[in-house]
Amino acid sequence: MAADAPHLNTPSDALIRQFESVVGAANCLTDPFEQAPHLKEWRDRYTGATKAVLKPKSVDEVSRIMQLANDHRVGVVAQGGNTGLVGGQIPRPEGADVVLSLERLSKCRALDPDNQTLTVEAGCKLATAQAFANEAGLLFPLSMASEGSATIGGNIATNAGGLNVLAYGTARALTLGLEVVLADGTIWNGLGSLKKDNTGYALKELFAGSEGTLGIITAATLKLYPKPAGQATAMVALNTLQDVAHLFRAASMRLGPELTAFEFMCQHAVDFTTEHMPQTPPVFEQSLPWTVLIEVSNLTSDDQALQSLSEVLMVSDTERRLVATAIATSSNQRQAFWKVREGISEAQKFEGGSIKHDVSVAPAAIPDFIAAANQVVEDLCPGARPCPFGHFGDGNVHYNISQPSGADTGEFLDQWQTVQDAVHDVVAKFDGSISAEHGIGVMKRETLARHKDPAALTIMRRIKSSLDPNGILNPGKLL
Amino acid sequence: MAADAPHLNTPSDALIRQFESVVGAANCLTDPFEQAPHLKEWRDRYTGATKAVLKPKSVDEVSRIMQLANDHRVGVVAQGGNTGLVGGQIPRPEGADVVLSLERLSKCRALDPDNQTLTVEAGCKLATAQAFANEAGLLFPLSMASEGSATIGGNIATNAGGLNVLAYGTARALTLGLEVVLADGTIWNGLGSLKKDNTGYALKELFAGSEGTLGIITAATLKLYPKPAGQATAMVALNTLQDVAHLFRAASMRLGPELTAFEFMCQHAVDFTTEHMPQTPPVFEQSLPWTVLIEVSNLTSDDQALQSLSEVLMVSDTERRLVATAIATSSNQRQAFWKVREGISEAQKFEGGSIKHDVSVAPAAIPDFIAAANQVVEDLCPGARPCPFGHFGDGNVHYNISQPSGADTGEFLDQWQTVQDAVHDVVAKFDGSISAEHGIGVMKRETLARHKDPAALTIMRRIKSSLDPNGILNPGKLL
Repeated sequence: MAADAPHLNTPSDALIRQFESVVGAANCLTDPFEQAPHLKEWRDRYTGATKAVLKPKSVDEVSRIMQLANDHRVGVVAQGGNTGLVGGQIPRPEGADVVLSLERLSKCRALDPDNQTLTVEAGCKLATAQAFANEAGLLFPLSMASEGSATIGGNIATNAGGLNVLAYGTARALTLGLEVVLADGTIWNGLGSLKKDNTGYALKELFAGSEGTLGIITAATLKLYPKPAGQATAMVALNTLQDVAHLFRAASMRLGPELTAFEFMCQHAVDFTTEHMPQTPPVFEQSLPWTVLIEVSNLTSDDQALQSLSEVLMVSDTERRLVATAIATSSNQRQAFWKVREGISEAQKFEGGSIKHDVSVAPAAIPDFIAAANQVVEDLCPGARPCPFGHFGDGNVHYNISQPSGADTGEFLDQWQTVQDAVHDVVAKFDGSISAEHGIGVMKRETLARHKDPAALTIMRRIKSSLDPNGILNPGKLL
Repeated sequence: MAADAPHLNTPSDALIRQFESVVGAANCLTDPFEQAPHLKEWRDRYTGATKAVLKPKSVDEVSRIMQLANDHRVGVVAQGGNTGLVGGQIPRPEGADVVLSLERLSKCRALDPDNQTLTVEAGCKLATAQAFANEAGLLFPLSMASEGSATIGGNIATNAGGLNVLAYGTARALTLGLEVVLADGTIWNGLGSLKKDNTGYALKELFAGSEGTLGIITAATLKLYPKPAGQATAMVALNTLQDVAHLFRAASMRLGPELTAFEFMCQHAVDFTTEHMPQTPPVFEQSLPWTVLIEVSNLTSDDQALQSLSEVLMVSDTERRLVATAIATSSNQRQAFWKVREGISEAQKFEGGSIKHDVSVAPAAIPDFIAAANQVVEDLCPGARPCPFGHFGDGNVHYNISQPSGADTGEFLDQWQTVQDAVHDVVAKFDGSISAEHGIGVMKRETLARHKDPAALTIMRRIKSSLDPNGILNPGKLL
């Protein structure tokens, strides 16, 4: 495999000094204490080592770093806010790679309200980009729990998803243009505010989601949108996943792009959250097998949004599928609803070990997929508590499994690989994806090789070799 | 350049017989009369030659054709409905390429209303795909004048645009999955209904828009949408392009995705159409410098659409920028409005020669771009009549120029290259695109080499070489 390129070198001290001369001593971190925040993933699953963390301030500095690294065949790991969940931003533990942190390359280059675009450098934090848009009376819709730390460069390099994909798409779809430094230091200026451009291959789409293996994203032009003027949010309790699917279909057919969230949670997820997390009182007197958080946004008014939402709930309830509904009557209540959804991962920790999956299937296949996965899990780990939740409308299931109540956490987690392989086999039966939004990184690299269409792997390896013939870009990741 | 690969061979008679054994004698056209419809572009600008037009019936046959062609280093030109405007679907005139017509590979493989997807083979006509969606109560929004002949494979291979891009995006954005046969005959099955999938590079995006130079698209999974329940359409006359830009901004901020069309036309365009075309009576008593066709679609009702449209027009008129407005009160009138817009190209023929451009800039830059281009044209061809129109919201200007009244058509058209180069230079000054939606093909290949960022060209050539090392896929096109 191209990414296994065995001929990479550990940088010599002389080369480190050359890197230092590019970025300045203060921005070439060789001290282990200073390096530490860049070498450990926040969930503590991956820890790397490096001779230097480099913090360039300009695209030109990135280019010179890449030239040096390419000439000397040294691996380079791009890093944004270090919030990735699959280890893609962490250097290999042997210490042969240098880390290229984009955090100082964080300027806003242009805000263009007339064309509804924002051009920022890669190290700009997602929350900062959102704030720039907001100040101009516009919306940059990409949103996720890590937005205060995650960077635009990292978001695009991993094609991040999050909470607003249903109406606005993932990071790739929100990217109008890119500036990228290639493996050999060549700078490609593909920035710009064009809505249509048929002058060749889809390069920005290709670099987006390539996890730092094809080039270093240094800046991006982002699509902005009118800010919603009205919103309405409801929680709905239902007995079966088929009823959830029915409600989703009715909502998407009637609301189209105004349906901005359709999140689903199993009973465990809701119970764990209301029990363990602060500020999440139960929404319904008793929890039911499934709870949906549904949100409508429009450009007119809250009243109009409320009316649309109420109509959908009414129409969907003719067969009494909706056991209970609660419509938020204040922004506090709306936030409380979202806290239930957003608290799930954290709440699960109070229930012991959890084996996690970020998978997708076609939305309508979710009920059958979850039934099949639950059966597989029960066969492997009797008593384990599947805790599926996620972005129903995207077909994206966070299929987490909490350990059996009172069981030994270590013993349960020892089954991680076995369980994950079995769940991914179920995903494959449903023509699903083993990584809906978190990417491949190190974590799913072997799983990818097992599940991805061999022709697709061949195409990806050829592209990788053609753009990074020495294999220096994020070695050991993705491919 | 990879695509100039000098080592391609003209197929021997023995090889033609091998191709014939794959597709059957009836589907290996060697007779010039039978070949003719495949060798001439409908605007008569490009004529090619070939020893055989091959019409495979299955993906397996396509694969075997590609294996043979690759083994013998013979160029292969994929062809759908032969409606392309830049010569990309026509074999080179020397006769060395074979034509691979996808027209018999046209089955509907799956219609999935629950997931709002449609999977069809490449040769399925766009109008047929629209009809499949319609029968399921859904919308496939891609739409253009050639939809009765154009095929889904061709639409995706050229990333076609058309009339509904503003709200729904181009063909690439409407593609959820692809099946592609590579240069060496390998079949990549990338079909599927996943809304999110972060397992590697954006391959479907890459093949979409690659104009048959990276692989042969044999099938696609398409995104469907709820059908609009309500529509409202208006024509608006304005004095300046700045006023058009102002109206567009107000409409897009208030209507968001409900703004499904915002087309603009200069005075010549409207005058030519109302004068020369049938069923296009003048909408306004006297034509003004600019006319806009604006359309609102929603999932509720015509009344609601009318109300939204009226509000936008009212709010935008506080400074009397809208000189005259006409809202369609019947579907006949709506169609009459669209006939004015759609009749422009045809109507221009009555005014003599026309030099055409399909370019894009950021939407807000359209007024300055057109002013600058008009100046350049007047300097080169005094009296020539610029006739810009197009998809304002996409930034896509069909910058056509009619000859001076009464001038010699031949002499005017002799200036085609000079004028086009000058206009493209203006496009470049505005960071625009020399091909917004028609692609590169043969027509703009040299222009591309002159205007595209050199790093982008290098990346494209490397990708091309890595996926088609022998350069057999659509030689002489795009790159």
